[in-house]
Amino acid sequence: MKSSTVKLRVRYPETDKMGVVHHTNYFVYFEIGRLEYLRDLGLPYIELEKEGFQLAVHEARCTYKASARFDDVLVVETWLSRLTYTQMELSYKISREESNDGSLTLLADGTTKLVCIDEGLRPKRIPNKIRDLLPPTTSDTSNT
Amino acid sequence: MKSSTVKLRVRYPETDKMGVVHHTNYFVYFEIGRLEYLRDLGLPYIELEKEGFQLAVHEARCTYKASARFDDVLVVETWLSRLTYTQMELSYKISREESNDGSLTLLADGTTKLVCIDEGLRPKRIPNKIRDLLPPTTSDTSNT
Amino acid sequence: MKSSTVKLRVRYPETDKMGVVHHTNYFVYFEIGRLEYLRDLGLPYIELEKEGFQLAVHEARCTYKASARFDDVLVVETWLSRLTYTQMELSYKISREESNDGSLTLLADGTTKLVCIDEGLRPKRIPNKIRDLLPPTTSDTSNT
Amino acid sequence: MKSSTVKLRVRYPETDKMGVVHHTNYFVYFEIGRLEYLRDLGLPYIELEKEGFQLAVHEARCTYKASARFDDVLVVETWLSRLTYTQMELSYKISREESNDGSLTLLADGTTKLVCIDEGLRPKRIPNKIRDLLPPTTSDTSNT
Repeated sequence: MKSSTVKLRVRYPETDKMGVVHHTNYFVYFEIGRLEYLRDLGLPYIELEKEGFQLAVHEARCTYKASARFDDVLVVETWLSRLTYTQMELSYKISREESNDGSLTLLADGTTKLVCIDEGLRPKRIPNKIRDLLPPTTSDTSNT
Repeated sequence: MKSSTVKLRVRYPETDKMGVVHHTNYFVYFEIGRLEYLRDLGLPYIELEKEGFQLAVHEARCTYKASARFDDVLVVETWLSRLTYTQMELSYKISREESNDGSLTLLADGTTKLVCIDEGLRPKRIPNKIRDLLPPTTSDTSNT
Repeated sequence: MKSSTVKLRVRYPETDKMGVVHHTNYFVYFEIGRLEYLRDLGLPYIELEKEGFQLAVHEARCTYKASARFDDVLVVETWLSRLTYTQMELSYKISREESNDGSLTLLADGTTKLVCIDEGLRPKRIPNKIRDLLPPTTSDTSNT
Repeated sequence: MKSSTVKLRVRYPETDKMGVVHHTNYFVYFEIGRLEYLRDLGLPYIELEKEGFQLAVHEARCTYKASARFDDVLVVETWLSRLTYTQMELSYKISREESNDGSLTLLADGTTKLVCIDEGLRPKRIPNKIRDLLPPTTSDTSNT
């Protein structure tokens, strides 16, 4: 699997007095994309949790290019951009699906670096069960 | 203790595209008032949790009278309005502290009914330790 | 139209340290139900705004019966329960769609009273354009 | 002014089912730090808005080092790390004030790049009124 996409509609309280979506919500959208990416991979996050794994965000970054507005339909595309023994880096693009012709307008992109932790919030190696399902990436250092 | 008050400043993402505070945030403010009420009573919620108690909201209601805006300083007043074996009802007033003369303008009032639960989310009788600290209310049925 | 339903999946940040959905989010879900109700009626809220109308929440109430959890699929049912010259009361039921058999478990119900306002946040009579589309209700006092 | 600090207490709904503060809230805390930085500088954001200026986030980044928990008192330190004709870069440190001895434990740091826009969301040069108040930075390119 190269990437995963999920659609969502902007909620009213996600807007702020500037009339557009408050910038912090893009990180919520990234997370929705991430959870859908794992689900598409056959690894629903809720199943990972049942096995004692959690993914904690170590670093998050977003670059904003254009504003999302109330009621916009957004498309979040998510893909694995880097994998090491202890970290997964996922990358994201958020686009607006234009209501007239269905074309996509890029609004933001970003990345999150995730580490695997157990229920006691202690770091864990990303388990083989996960690694085997993840697609190879050019920057994969897991075999070096 | 009759009532407890806490001040907070409206945060930017609490506003929506209407230019005012989104109505759902008033329930967040009620909760801040509630936690401060317990702290003032000598029962910080975090201590209750350590002893295995949690308070779950069974019913919440808010009536909106005027809008709060970005950067407003709000005053949340909280008091116990009813106490039974298994439920506490807290009542709230949210007012804006006017920047020119410090007077208070009432923006909203409401109530929440809370039940005591344990870590497994099962209902528990409100413990005597809590009951003894709570002020008597006219509607108190705990001794009937 | 008797009622409208919309499905949504619980987002991770909607949960709190109790492990369940924080109670304030139910009012966000009510709003999603409300916007979908208007959309189904042929009155997308965004179109109402373009014509200078806004709906402000005058009163909101929710009763909680059972907890929603991360990744639950929720069904929000919305219907008009009362209509007067100046107010619409909408009622809601939030249920979990059980993953094994698709049955619905009621988690919460509630109501919101809405008033119509203009862009200056001044009260307005609910316009005929809206009234004509709304279904009659037993408590409708608009013709009395 | 070198930097500005503001204290805040972690709110219950800012936690998630992992038991710690959900990572997206750190960007809300950065914003609170940013608004306080401007207020300390004598430029309350609400005054900037009245003059037709808004600051839009062009890029946001956060690195997470340790978890914040419910009821923690957090200290947000904010300073200007870069200034150009059209952009301000602010940097942040979020620390927990330990309840036993008041010492600070670093939880996260980050940066946001802000652009100045008008009410129509069009880019504007950062006005002299603002520039004159901002402290010089080593990376200041405003005179080059």
